[in-house]
Amino acid sequence: MWFTEHFTPNVKFSIKIKEELVNLKSEYQTIAVYESEDFGRILVIDGFLMLTEKDEFIYHEMITHVPMAVNPRIKDVLVIGAGDGGTVRELIRYPSIERIDMVEIDEKVVEVCRRYIPQTAGKLDDPRVRLLFMDGVKFVADKESEYDLIIVDSTDPFGPGEGLFSSAFYADCHRALKGQGILVNQIGGPYYASDIQAAQSAYRKIKRIFPVARVYQAHIPTYASGHWLFGFASKGLDPVRDLRADEWNRLGLQTQYYNTSLHLGSFALPNYVEQLLKEGE
Amino acid sequence: MWFTEHFTPNVKFSIKIKEELVNLKSEYQTIAVYESEDFGRILVIDGFLMLTEKDEFIYHEMITHVPMAVNPRIKDVLVIGAGDGGTVRELIRYPSIERIDMVEIDEKVVEVCRRYIPQTAGKLDDPRVRLLFMDGVKFVADKESEYDLIIVDSTDPFGPGEGLFSSAFYADCHRALKGQGILVNQIGGPYYASDIQAAQSAYRKIKRIFPVARVYQAHIPTYASGHWLFGFASKGLDPVRDLRADEWNRLGLQTQYYNTSLHLGSFALPNYVEQLLKEGE
Repeated sequence: MWFTEHFTPNVKFSIKIKEELVNLKSEYQTIAVYESEDFGRILVIDGFLMLTEKDEFIYHEMITHVPMAVNPRIKDVLVIGAGDGGTVRELIRYPSIERIDMVEIDEKVVEVCRRYIPQTAGKLDDPRVRLLFMDGVKFVADKESEYDLIIVDSTDPFGPGEGLFSSAFYADCHRALKGQGILVNQIGGPYYASDIQAAQSAYRKIKRIFPVARVYQAHIPTYASGHWLFGFASKGLDPVRDLRADEWNRLGLQTQYYNTSLHLGSFALPNYVEQLLKEGE
Repeated sequence: MWFTEHFTPNVKFSIKIKEELVNLKSEYQTIAVYESEDFGRILVIDGFLMLTEKDEFIYHEMITHVPMAVNPRIKDVLVIGAGDGGTVRELIRYPSIERIDMVEIDEKVVEVCRRYIPQTAGKLDDPRVRLLFMDGVKFVADKESEYDLIIVDSTDPFGPGEGLFSSAFYADCHRALKGQGILVNQIGGPYYASDIQAAQSAYRKIKRIFPVARVYQAHIPTYASGHWLFGFASKGLDPVRDLRADEWNRLGLQTQYYNTSLHLGSFALPNYVEQLLKEGE
């Protein structure tokens, strides 16, 4: 048995499956977990691969430690989406963080991950974490100067995650952030046409709202093209100039992917990626 | 019709094919070119994807411009393998280069690429290029202080390319290089087990022979995991400290992937890659 994801109608990536552990339909989407031969357990939502136990560390480290190393004194964090729990797992490693509000629209994702993927969901019971099962777009609409960091760890820009890629939502995030606030989100890949449009659109919208808007990249082997992009937006902090490398390194966090040299390198995009972001503006 | 490459027995990547343009068996290997739906023409050797017209620029820019930007005054270059011509296409853009010896074991690869993939093979008639159809291992065995740069643009470390991953060959390259010489080679990916072993083995051998031995990376969407590694070895020049960014930028070369910021970033490896290279030593 194989799980297959089509990157385009003409490109597909397939993973051999040992066993289907769960496959259910929630109010919002289909959620499945499979035991794979090579990647450990994999989470699939609406037919798209969300994570594998083998390489989820890359995504979760890069969406978390990049903003934290720019401002290691972050206290109040809002996480939107992230139902698998991997982002929270990384965040709670920072003693300085006092509050993590995690707003996931689909409680079933959390239920499934708590049961089948404890590798990511095992730290959701940390006392600093407040789990809210509601639409992140609605949650953030009435917040003002509450958070130091907002991480939008969403599915793709269609289906239940669509609103998390809208200008109105980004404007609400801007207002919800404190003066030194940072917004980080996953914006897709730079290689296949549909991903490119999504990344361009997200970047264009964020750039109109935030004075600092940059894009960084990571090697994520099981995502389309293996080249994934994240948006880094802020009210002033620059992810390269303001990197607190020494301060972050003194925290002594062990990471498998992230380091502060790679942090700088992750903002050095290939020319063709710079070009497509510029064309999208 | 689909072309499928197995990254492992349990992971496969498939590309939809419009038409098979050629499929032949040379003295050394099977060589096929297909017209694909999304990637233009693709070159397949012994069942492994060697290049696609859509993303070959990444591999060829990164194997060429990284060493050239460390020493933009390189004059004498030896290229081993590289039968598709893409590496030579990038090299001949440097007016300073006086001689390119390209040693490819399999004349049929060049014939096929000249006919079916002019995008890469179209510059092999440059007067500075001397094409030699012989075993690169034998060619380099009696050379001494002849080259400023050796690029080993090989297939994988089995089959006809196997000797290009041996300690004896690397020692011959060391001797064939001048005092400021640089050796660059592709050493595979860091993610799937068989690739990891190949990369570890290549790095270990090179490190024992060259005083400077570093590894850099690129995002290559159609190679296994999309994360590809290159070895940079030299008799003294350091790829980061000795980068001649201003000098290279003054050349005014237009590139689609490479730039001198990315050059630095490409040497900032993820922790897990640093770790596996260290374990292999």
